[in-house]
Amino acid sequence: MKIQLALDRMTIPEAVGMAEKVAQSVDWIEVGTSLIKEFGVDSVKEMKRAFPDKVIVADIKTIDNARYEFEMCFEAGADVATVMGVSPLVTIDASMEVAGRYGRMVMIDLLNTSEEQQRELLKYKDAIFCEHVSKDQQEEMGAKNQGRGSSIFSGERMVAVAGGITLSSLVQLQRTLKPEVVIVGSAITKAENPSESAAQFKELILHGEGK
Amino acid sequence: MKIQLALDRMTIPEAVGMAEKVAQSVDWIEVGTSLIKEFGVDSVKEMKRAFPDKVIVADIKTIDNARYEFEMCFEAGADVATVMGVSPLVTIDASMEVAGRYGRMVMIDLLNTSEEQQRELLKYKDAIFCEHVSKDQQEEMGAKNQGRGSSIFSGERMVAVAGGITLSSLVQLQRTLKPEVVIVGSAITKAENPSESAAQFKELILHGEGK
Repeated sequence: MKIQLALDRMTIPEAVGMAEKVAQSVDWIEVGTSLIKEFGVDSVKEMKRAFPDKVIVADIKTIDNARYEFEMCFEAGADVATVMGVSPLVTIDASMEVAGRYGRMVMIDLLNTSEEQQRELLKYKDAIFCEHVSKDQQEEMGAKNQGRGSSIFSGERMVAVAGGITLSSLVQLQRTLKPEVVIVGSAITKAENPSESAAQFKELILHGEGK
Repeated sequence: MKIQLALDRMTIPEAVGMAEKVAQSVDWIEVGTSLIKEFGVDSVKEMKRAFPDKVIVADIKTIDNARYEFEMCFEAGADVATVMGVSPLVTIDASMEVAGRYGRMVMIDLLNTSEEQQRELLKYKDAIFCEHVSKDQQEEMGAKNQGRGSSIFSGERMVAVAGGITLSSLVQLQRTLKPEVVIVGSAITKAENPSESAAQFKELILHGEGK
């Protein structure tokens, strides 16, 4: 299981600085949507420049104009870029085509997808599927991670999980969703000691209750 | 009927320059999603600085983190910002709340919404509803504007229409959708003479086959 550090609601230098603090405990570094929309694709470029050997995820949340946006992310150095599962399928097709051409990866964000849409998305065998409780949904629900017991993607496709994940909810998720990638944001970035928090996540994954 | 000029796939100076060429024929100026994602929210700031008296639309396509993104757009000077109709309703609620607080407007992008979602969205009485054929769908369909005859929002709510609109498709749309806002991109920006093309749109709306 890999840890993807999600960086949001901060400046580019703050994001690079945070990533430096916790780099040895995390595998992938996500340039969050808020960074891209606030500062543009330079946020992706600067993160790749600072961490050329890490997998950089551009959380661009494409829902149209996929060729343009995905080429922009990959040219900026992203290894993975995100597309919304609620997009028209032609948009997801285009993002897969660009990723194939660059030898990079697509993460399909399942936010608010219907069961029918999820079944259609199963055909993208090379994508990563992100089970996502959004920031706004977390605020509404108080960051409960219940109701995440099942996913048609678990065991079938590469699965990521995002949204208010803590050490204790990760224990639960390791038993149910069994994700390949666990995306952690504020539990690390807003911790009193981010490097210690990141190390605890790494320790849990390596020697904890899961595998 | 108002004309919203959509500016995409160009630099900020190119976008400001294009808007200057056609300003006298258009009512609203849209900073396209590609500008925001490529260059950040400075694209919105610079457009408002160049056109303080125009309505500036930030096509930020929010699908999460609505408070943060909408405050960012309005602080940058946007008069209207967009949220996806396929978002969780809590996200649309948040965008409406921020817009109300700032005295600005929300445009709900109906891209890929189901009939059920559209019926739920009717409750947002103060929003503008954008019937949207996306760039990727246009490429797939060859920019046909068929199948746009009806909308549950026409006559009930303020309606905008976007996606590959030309002078001839506008004639059709004036009879069917009867939009309050017509969003025109490449038919103006990629015309040999953009200011002439924009003037033709304005002339059609003022004295043409519609009203």
